[in-house]
Amino acid sequence: MTQFDMPLDQLRAFRYDETEPADFDVFWAKTLGEVRHHELDVVQCPVDTRLRTVTVDDVAFNGFGGDRVRAWLVRPAGLAGPLPAVVEFIGYGGGRGLPHEKLLWASAGFAHLVVDTRGQGGLWSVADTPDPYGTGSSAPGFLTRGISSPEDYYYRRVFSDGVRAVEAVRTLPVVDASRVIVTGSSQGGAIALAVSGLVPDIAGVAARSPFLCAIRRAVAVTDSDPYAELRRFLGIHRHEITHAFGVLGYFDGVFMARRARRPGWFSAGLMDDVCPPSSVFAAANEFAGPVHVEVWPYNGHEGGGVDDDRLLLDWGANLVAGPDE
Amino acid sequence: MTQFDMPLDQLRAFRYDETEPADFDVFWAKTLGEVRHHELDVVQCPVDTRLRTVTVDDVAFNGFGGDRVRAWLVRPAGLAGPLPAVVEFIGYGGGRGLPHEKLLWASAGFAHLVVDTRGQGGLWSVADTPDPYGTGSSAPGFLTRGISSPEDYYYRRVFSDGVRAVEAVRTLPVVDASRVIVTGSSQGGAIALAVSGLVPDIAGVAARSPFLCAIRRAVAVTDSDPYAELRRFLGIHRHEITHAFGVLGYFDGVFMARRARRPGWFSAGLMDDVCPPSSVFAAANEFAGPVHVEVWPYNGHEGGGVDDDRLLLDWGANLVAGPDE
Amino acid sequence: MTQFDMPLDQLRAFRYDETEPADFDVFWAKTLGEVRHHELDVVQCPVDTRLRTVTVDDVAFNGFGGDRVRAWLVRPAGLAGPLPAVVEFIGYGGGRGLPHEKLLWASAGFAHLVVDTRGQGGLWSVADTPDPYGTGSSAPGFLTRGISSPEDYYYRRVFSDGVRAVEAVRTLPVVDASRVIVTGSSQGGAIALAVSGLVPDIAGVAARSPFLCAIRRAVAVTDSDPYAELRRFLGIHRHEITHAFGVLGYFDGVFMARRARRPGWFSAGLMDDVCPPSSVFAAANEFAGPVHVEVWPYNGHEGGGVDDDRLLLDWGANLVAGPDE
Amino acid sequence: MTQFDMPLDQLRAFRYDETEPADFDVFWAKTLGEVRHHELDVVQCPVDTRLRTVTVDDVAFNGFGGDRVRAWLVRPAGLAGPLPAVVEFIGYGGGRGLPHEKLLWASAGFAHLVVDTRGQGGLWSVADTPDPYGTGSSAPGFLTRGISSPEDYYYRRVFSDGVRAVEAVRTLPVVDASRVIVTGSSQGGAIALAVSGLVPDIAGVAARSPFLCAIRRAVAVTDSDPYAELRRFLGIHRHEITHAFGVLGYFDGVFMARRARRPGWFSAGLMDDVCPPSSVFAAANEFAGPVHVEVWPYNGHEGGGVDDDRLLLDWGANLVAGPDE
Amino acid sequence: MTQFDMPLDQLRAFRYDETEPADFDVFWAKTLGEVRHHELDVVQCPVDTRLRTVTVDDVAFNGFGGDRVRAWLVRPAGLAGPLPAVVEFIGYGGGRGLPHEKLLWASAGFAHLVVDTRGQGGLWSVADTPDPYGTGSSAPGFLTRGISSPEDYYYRRVFSDGVRAVEAVRTLPVVDASRVIVTGSSQGGAIALAVSGLVPDIAGVAARSPFLCAIRRAVAVTDSDPYAELRRFLGIHRHEITHAFGVLGYFDGVFMARRARRPGWFSAGLMDDVCPPSSVFAAANEFAGPVHVEVWPYNGHEGGGVDDDRLLLDWGANLVAGPDE
Amino acid sequence: MTQFDMPLDQLRAFRYDETEPADFDVFWAKTLGEVRHHELDVVQCPVDTRLRTVTVDDVAFNGFGGDRVRAWLVRPAGLAGPLPAVVEFIGYGGGRGLPHEKLLWASAGFAHLVVDTRGQGGLWSVADTPDPYGTGSSAPGFLTRGISSPEDYYYRRVFSDGVRAVEAVRTLPVVDASRVIVTGSSQGGAIALAVSGLVPDIAGVAARSPFLCAIRRAVAVTDSDPYAELRRFLGIHRHEITHAFGVLGYFDGVFMARRARRPGWFSAGLMDDVCPPSSVFAAANEFAGPVHVEVWPYNGHEGGGVDDDRLLLDWGANLVAGPDE
Repeated sequence: MTQFDMPLDQLRAFRYDETEPADFDVFWAKTLGEVRHHELDVVQCPVDTRLRTVTVDDVAFNGFGGDRVRAWLVRPAGLAGPLPAVVEFIGYGGGRGLPHEKLLWASAGFAHLVVDTRGQGGLWSVADTPDPYGTGSSAPGFLTRGISSPEDYYYRRVFSDGVRAVEAVRTLPVVDASRVIVTGSSQGGAIALAVSGLVPDIAGVAARSPFLCAIRRAVAVTDSDPYAELRRFLGIHRHEITHAFGVLGYFDGVFMARRARRPGWFSAGLMDDVCPPSSVFAAANEFAGPVHVEVWPYNGHEGGGVDDDRLLLDWGANLVAGPDE
Repeated sequence: MTQFDMPLDQLRAFRYDETEPADFDVFWAKTLGEVRHHELDVVQCPVDTRLRTVTVDDVAFNGFGGDRVRAWLVRPAGLAGPLPAVVEFIGYGGGRGLPHEKLLWASAGFAHLVVDTRGQGGLWSVADTPDPYGTGSSAPGFLTRGISSPEDYYYRRVFSDGVRAVEAVRTLPVVDASRVIVTGSSQGGAIALAVSGLVPDIAGVAARSPFLCAIRRAVAVTDSDPYAELRRFLGIHRHEITHAFGVLGYFDGVFMARRARRPGWFSAGLMDDVCPPSSVFAAANEFAGPVHVEVWPYNGHEGGGVDDDRLLLDWGANLVAGPDE
Repeated sequence: MTQFDMPLDQLRAFRYDETEPADFDVFWAKTLGEVRHHELDVVQCPVDTRLRTVTVDDVAFNGFGGDRVRAWLVRPAGLAGPLPAVVEFIGYGGGRGLPHEKLLWASAGFAHLVVDTRGQGGLWSVADTPDPYGTGSSAPGFLTRGISSPEDYYYRRVFSDGVRAVEAVRTLPVVDASRVIVTGSSQGGAIALAVSGLVPDIAGVAARSPFLCAIRRAVAVTDSDPYAELRRFLGIHRHEITHAFGVLGYFDGVFMARRARRPGWFSAGLMDDVCPPSSVFAAANEFAGPVHVEVWPYNGHEGGGVDDDRLLLDWGANLVAGPDE
Repeated sequence: MTQFDMPLDQLRAFRYDETEPADFDVFWAKTLGEVRHHELDVVQCPVDTRLRTVTVDDVAFNGFGGDRVRAWLVRPAGLAGPLPAVVEFIGYGGGRGLPHEKLLWASAGFAHLVVDTRGQGGLWSVADTPDPYGTGSSAPGFLTRGISSPEDYYYRRVFSDGVRAVEAVRTLPVVDASRVIVTGSSQGGAIALAVSGLVPDIAGVAARSPFLCAIRRAVAVTDSDPYAELRRFLGIHRHEITHAFGVLGYFDGVFMARRARRPGWFSAGLMDDVCPPSSVFAAANEFAGPVHVEVWPYNGHEGGGVDDDRLLLDWGANLVAGPDE
Repeated sequence: MTQFDMPLDQLRAFRYDETEPADFDVFWAKTLGEVRHHELDVVQCPVDTRLRTVTVDDVAFNGFGGDRVRAWLVRPAGLAGPLPAVVEFIGYGGGRGLPHEKLLWASAGFAHLVVDTRGQGGLWSVADTPDPYGTGSSAPGFLTRGISSPEDYYYRRVFSDGVRAVEAVRTLPVVDASRVIVTGSSQGGAIALAVSGLVPDIAGVAARSPFLCAIRRAVAVTDSDPYAELRRFLGIHRHEITHAFGVLGYFDGVFMARRARRPGWFSAGLMDDVCPPSSVFAAANEFAGPVHVEVWPYNGHEGGGVDDDRLLLDWGANLVAGPDE
Repeated sequence: MTQFDMPLDQLRAFRYDETEPADFDVFWAKTLGEVRHHELDVVQCPVDTRLRTVTVDDVAFNGFGGDRVRAWLVRPAGLAGPLPAVVEFIGYGGGRGLPHEKLLWASAGFAHLVVDTRGQGGLWSVADTPDPYGTGSSAPGFLTRGISSPEDYYYRRVFSDGVRAVEAVRTLPVVDASRVIVTGSSQGGAIALAVSGLVPDIAGVAARSPFLCAIRRAVAVTDSDPYAELRRFLGIHRHEITHAFGVLGYFDGVFMARRARRPGWFSAGLMDDVCPPSSVFAAANEFAGPVHVEVWPYNGHEGGGVDDDRLLLDWGANLVAGPDE
């Protein structure tokens, strides 16, 4: 892969010229209102992992439609809290995985909630959360499921689950509810970004190579999955292009970013053909809170990888430093 | 692609050594019993197509769970019938398409029912039939949706719709209910084969390069989609392999073929890496009715293409020749 | 594939800046003059197809050099005419195929002549028309056969056959000679476009993703076959580049379009890497008759596919509506 | 590429089980009889190359049908002869190239005739020899040109040219007619092998990774071009498979090898997916003269490359050692 | 990828039929003797990581030639020990990475030494250990560096470093020297396997999809890197094949496995085209200690991934259970 | 491949905007000073090749660090000289090859020195020159070996060898020291260009598709090897990007070109994705001597191939024409 997208100076100035839906806020207020009619009903059960320095709990709560959503809570063993928390969402095709997969944040002293993406978990890490909703005509994959209306669109349920995940983690005794960061890579970054727009009082958001930003731009300049799912669908549903982008407008990270209020941290690989850098900058450039973009000129979708991890440990620690830190 | 699978003499002798589920017939009797609790409720509406020699109707009926399934009925204009009928199912990712897409059978004097596959229609031809059911953890695509149990598996709904499509076409005044052929390519061939095992009094079945036969064999010798969806899922759900193949046993074309009673016609491309020829022969070799396999040594998944079309016109005409033919 | 070519607003304004050969019209007048020295000698024989609603005839006529060219005439059974006619040319590598392959136009009430491309028919649909001419040094494929001079160039023969096909169809009793449309996709679109420039009194031309337009531009921005044949040839015949483009100038669709007089209909896929959209617009933007370009932003070389079919049924019907229509 | 074909011990024992045409010898006697009705008419003209140690002449002679065939004669400058000669044929898509391309044999003291392949020369080295014959339906490329009958098949002309090239070189004053070796790689090896069967009194043949041997086997185990041209053609001309292999029987190197009488040298790459090793061994195992096969386990179609060159210098020198050597 | 290698029953019985070098043990005794002439000189320095539950030290020791080799020691914070230890070697192209990359074993209560591979660390995780030795003619990559003799071969240095890493970890106060496991994936598995043959008193070895086993077999059945480096080299150094395999014999995991004495644990993906399953089984089938092979039928080179991690936590804990466990 | 880089008019005007190291000349003066402390010690031995018109000698001399570097001297047999000489450097992965591989320049009357590249020779032509130096962390391949400092960088040794090769050839009795041309393709072109900057009194330099020019630009617009080695390294050594380009500045052909004084000849393929045309023009546009760029619009990395050969014979002959020429 090459630096195929815009040069860096153009990226920093790039403005996505789609119009957001007029009733964007109404739509989400109504959606979250409905979601909150269901009890959150957080349940937390210990898991046997052979790990000693960290403790893992199986956490479940009610997400969209009152459907149970599963997550792992990984935290430093024997620390009473209240701890700052990181809520992490997962990339396309994966799930929360096995309980021993993600140890970094907990090893650094955070309560770490790793949240399933409903219906996914078949591509690279397992999940335990069904998505009990059907779809109209769709292409293989999740990107076009329910695309016929904003109400039926798959990511309405996923983003709602994300909001509820933050609400759930705040109920946990070990967590300091005022110090909750959301993060994720790719699809996980898209969910985190949505949550940052829908739950403005989180402590901050770190969106790594986020998916679902400036969608019309992205699908024009890359043919990698999962954006290509949309390209395939629109290439056969040729008369539904305007309608589909109308629906997608309620879920575009650019419009979510406009509603964020707290610090945002983005990373972008200039050779990222999965979530092209112009789509990432489109969101970062609209981000309404203080914002930083970490640019990796010779990386693709992996972005800064373990270097991003290290930077985020520092960023996160500074953001949510407790009295003893 | 090369002739990568077995040599032809071994293909003709190949026996798939999986054991079918002990309650295979019970499962399907129960499933179809439930399906038939819903009214079939066939509705037929004319469609404006600018076509003159053929007439197209939009047909809807209740399939699995009483969900509406859509189809086109294409038939020679001005012929009163009763006509022999062909019920065609569609390959993976497609739907019934536009009303003017499939003119061959009607131009040859048949009533031709082109049936949607629920939830699909986003890859290469459009559809109008939702699949209002969710899934547990799944890989992108349809092959692993609901794979956690036979009851939830996606193809339980699809095969049930196929059975109901035959029942629906038989209610149409223009159709001679005793002369109904089922056919399809790839996934369409899998559905046709399933219907031939579940509705033994159809006139015949033509399964072209059928999918979902000898599934364990197929996923071991090809890495093309859609079989690769299963490979991806099993490569991450490593402890569910036995369970998954247990579920798939209720849907394998090899076991459906054992229950067929009327003539069967198969085609196989010896270079087919989507539905490998050994998987096709596995079903044909178990087919309980009179069976013919058309072998195309230098073709892949397309098999005989328009040559198969021509052969099937003859085969179909001979099979269902009316008094005046 | 992505929207790799120019943005749509630039496409609409794009002008191809090659100069057309000074003796373009002389060359073609001389060529067609020679071609017409041969009797057209149209012969029409019925074909047995098992089809009932349409009738297929094997039609032969004398094309370039008096060589016999074969075509299928597909028409609504039992309609006396005179009918409007569609003359269709075929994409690269294909031929007229089997008589039952193309039923759409006849089912809509047109006489449909499906014309072979000489020497081709080995890639995706069969043909019955030899090309009894040799070549100098050439790359595998048809694009560089006879490229040493305009007189020897392969497409001189092919375009001449196209002109004769229109003349042949006009002689048929069932056809209304004043209502003849030419059409085709890709190479078929190139031939149709050439005919529209060389036979200005046709009723209209529909060129779908046409090949052989703005050739120098196309071979610079795509490396897909068949344009890549020319790239390979010029990459080894390094001192013949100017000469080769000089020869190709007599065959470029941009220059043909300048000579058209009747309505033209183009389709272009913005992700078409076989016939890049800038090459299609280059021709459409020079088209001298009334012109429409149907743009498909998420399609490649297939363009609008069956959606184009439907649009063309309407367009064609409006264009050649008879007194009873 | 891997060692995908048979293990070496099976290769050494492999017998191709196709039957040769009953009138194989009659066909070729008749063909060569007709070819020889034309004067050979060898013309030799010096070429200006800036080279000093070798001299290059442009040689032309009448090949099949009396058509002029071009070649370079490269020879050591200032050596009167008579010299042993090497006649080299060229791989698929190439021609004799530029006069300074091939200096090895002449630098080693041989008269080296580098012979064009008619109509080719557009893929990787240029040519100057037209092929003034047409074709029926064919796939892009040369392998299916004229495949409708042995008389029309392209390689009938090419192999005839090869025979005439040997006859032409023998007329040159600088050449010792009794010491003529034929050689070539890939398609060049196929031509050399054919000449060795049709002109049994040559001094020897070196066929490197020869093409067109055990053709039915080859097209089943590889999908690389140019064998894939045949696969494509047979995948659409589905009813002409038997006929096509009947035609190809007259040109198969296995049957040519049976008629050779002088020493043969083959090389085979065990990872050759262009001319699979089993097809090469099929010919070598039938070779009727003394035969050597040089096996390269970790090479593809390039075989031994410059190592083969070195081995052949020795082999050739030993084979045609003159009195002073 | 498919199950392209042998069926499982053949894999379980597969014996690699190369002969091991007669002086294999002499060679390694001499090598390790020389290595041990250098002081081990273990130095351990704390690293600042922001991690709290685990402590990371930068460990350096003298490896082959007295060259400094770097590693991370990751261990549970605040645990005095002596702890069981896991020495992990890294896959091809990677290094020990950043100090926070590998937290699993330490989180489970082990002292975990993550060892650099000299000269590598440029492909997917960084390293800090130079390889101050040159090479003769080599292909890009590490597999052919110094292949002209066993003494100069790159992996002589790497395997020696592996032996010294075990010796180094045993000197650390926090480590129980009698409970040291070696492990690694791919190249890391090859090093671990070598150490298990050269240091028979380790507690056990877990070789996941190990590289460098049955090398001649592997390079014949796969063309993936890094084995393909060897294929490229042998395809040009055509006369050094026997010599090269002679050199490689001193480094083949099959021969190392024969010398192991303690429990061995292997994993193999049946679709692994990087380290084909037959090469893995070749080593496991010769393993002289108690041995287990975990087979993953639908995985490639990743094998069991996080499932293997979980199994190894159990296996490792059982193997080195201390008095309090 | 397409004309993916800048249009030709922009190429001709392109200026690379990196700053050269301030101590560029000091660095190279120091380096060459050290190199010249070693005796050159040229040894020349005849080689047995079976060639008659040319003579080949094995030449060795001391290069960087006094390490022996090997070359072939190919020259017209029996010519006493002094002859003009061509010193040729080899492309990435290759070596001087076998003695009979390169006959063109000698056949044209030049003494031709074909110089090994140390440590290479494993990819496409063999070599006999070790590189007895190690490396720090590096990616597979030669491009990142020793990249931690200019002193350790691999190409410091290679370019120094190149300078010494010119000095060596000038000592040979058969060579006219005042008439020495340097040339090479790709990496060979990079070495030749470096020599032209470091040894300004050569007669001229012909750099064909030269590598290592405008390196930062090149690695941004192509992902082909070997530039991709650098991309991989920088994608993991994310914090060393500035440092790495600082090191590479001492070796960039753009800065070498500024120091050339005699005629330069470049060739560039507009479809070259290995050494993109903008990187080639970046050097040519800075070339301080008289310069010519041969542009091949439809070629990739092969550029003009044998056509370049022919042009260079003329260019070289004109440049170094002796009194008798």
